[in-house]
Amino acid sequence: MAWTTPQDLIEGALGGDRRALARIITRIEDGHQTAPELLATLFERGGHAYVIGLTGAPGAGKSTITDQLITLIRASGDEVAVLAVDPSSPFTGGAILGDRIRMQDHAGDAGVYIRSMGSRGHLGGIAAATPRVVSILDGAGFPFVIVETVGVGQAEVEIVENADTTVVVVNPGWGDSVQANKAGLLEIGDTFVINKADRPGVNDTMRDLRQMLELGGDRTWEPPVVPSVATSGEGIDEIWQAIKDHRKHLESSGELAVARRHRLELEFRRAMIDELTTRAEASAGRQALTALVDQVTLREIDPWTAARRFVAELAEENTRGH
Amino acid sequence: MAWTTPQDLIEGALGGDRRALARIITRIEDGHQTAPELLATLFERGGHAYVIGLTGAPGAGKSTITDQLITLIRASGDEVAVLAVDPSSPFTGGAILGDRIRMQDHAGDAGVYIRSMGSRGHLGGIAAATPRVVSILDGAGFPFVIVETVGVGQAEVEIVENADTTVVVVNPGWGDSVQANKAGLLEIGDTFVINKADRPGVNDTMRDLRQMLELGGDRTWEPPVVPSVATSGEGIDEIWQAIKDHRKHLESSGELAVARRHRLELEFRRAMIDELTTRAEASAGRQALTALVDQVTLREIDPWTAARRFVAELAEENTRGH
Repeated sequence: MAWTTPQDLIEGALGGDRRALARIITRIEDGHQTAPELLATLFERGGHAYVIGLTGAPGAGKSTITDQLITLIRASGDEVAVLAVDPSSPFTGGAILGDRIRMQDHAGDAGVYIRSMGSRGHLGGIAAATPRVVSILDGAGFPFVIVETVGVGQAEVEIVENADTTVVVVNPGWGDSVQANKAGLLEIGDTFVINKADRPGVNDTMRDLRQMLELGGDRTWEPPVVPSVATSGEGIDEIWQAIKDHRKHLESSGELAVARRHRLELEFRRAMIDELTTRAEASAGRQALTALVDQVTLREIDPWTAARRFVAELAEENTRGH
Repeated sequence: MAWTTPQDLIEGALGGDRRALARIITRIEDGHQTAPELLATLFERGGHAYVIGLTGAPGAGKSTITDQLITLIRASGDEVAVLAVDPSSPFTGGAILGDRIRMQDHAGDAGVYIRSMGSRGHLGGIAAATPRVVSILDGAGFPFVIVETVGVGQAEVEIVENADTTVVVVNPGWGDSVQANKAGLLEIGDTFVINKADRPGVNDTMRDLRQMLELGGDRTWEPPVVPSVATSGEGIDEIWQAIKDHRKHLESSGELAVARRHRLELEFRRAMIDELTTRAEASAGRQALTALVDQVTLREIDPWTAARRFVAELAEENTRGH
């Protein structure tokens, strides 16, 4: 079987072989033993992709907008990767978002790579996997990566936090903006799109959005609100222009470098916490932990004191053990 | 000034002094130096409160239902504490939920204690504080604790996960059930309430909810769906009966003990992760961490390898240092 070594896989992916790329991503998702090497090698080559996050309520028109953006990016000759993440879909495994796009005109276009991620079990898992997979796509050489996700809550907010520019899609009507606000989407949007703008209420929604955005306080960037009818392509040029304007703003103000450093620091801290926890649990052993939880359950000790004592003893044992 | 020592505060709270209780909770929220002692002492006395979670979209009628449940619990002579958590409200500091209830008939009733928590800054903070505050209310001797929160996403799901019985409130209409599903509320509800059942569409909503619940697979408990008109008190007896039925089911099946142990274990693990992280960062020092993030930013090392190496070096230093 081809590509058995990480190096073969990476050479394949860099040479444009999509099956090699797909296999790398699967290994990252599965925590394959070669995942660290794959991540390390491609991270070193990365840092050049511009990452666009696209989020909004189910049915807002995200996939149609993504589809149109792909067409636009391809028209300029650039390659693009799409990561469609659907954490709230245990039934479809998140396949719907990606399939919708795939079914459009890009199936035979080698310059477009589309990958779906759904929640196979744990929600934290998919949020944790997203930055790793984005890093792979970046390292594989795509100048643009679009991360599309259903915007219904904190988990999704975390997913689009991997983007340089976040586009929030709503539809005409008051409820949608309020919902977007409640879900924390107003704070993270760099561009707002009111899709299905051929329906009534666009002006009201635009006013409501602008008012809610003003409540958010001082910003160095005023997020534009763009009306669109994605099915007919109306407003797509304006959305793309808004993304490019935001990119220019981030680059000229130096905010892009600051934000990327901040994201890498967050990712490092998350990985550090994982590593500390894994080590602590392995070092103490399953039995010691169970005994401690027994004591907590019997209310002989509270969970917070137990945790402090446990970590302190671990540190001491480490010291004595060598 | 009265109650300067933790022991004084605890004696006051156990004696029914609500100002002493309020001050204890503030100390827990603020991470006061006496917080560990307060938590430890009251945890030891706890384990007797039955905790009811109440969640649903904004405007679904949660506060009115809570208000009616308070009246019902008080009529039987029991005391009750309400913790109103509004993580998505930076403007009000979460005060609205609690105020709504307070403004009803319970203001002068010493058998009712109502406390609001809002997000002052960090979202993770409020989710982390909830189990601690619930533990305080439990230890203070309330036989019932109601945790009320706006159900819009993962953070809120985490908050109601502290409950023995979770009540999910929706209104007639398809969109609401779908939203509840998307927000992950269907999986956590032990009782569903269709409030404002004097509006059209109740039967449709009931059918939709039951169908979606059936998709959820095998359960030992079939969550009832109760229609109500909370403003007039209609359906409140049935909601309370559903909560009592669920409690009986949990107690007779042994699931209550299992679930409570599981929650304590989760809380212990969360506290352990906090403690490990704090120690690691303190031990390495701010400078070492910054230098490492610099390297990651320059792509000399990827964040995942950096984290593994950092933790490994920390463990070695610990060993050598003594």
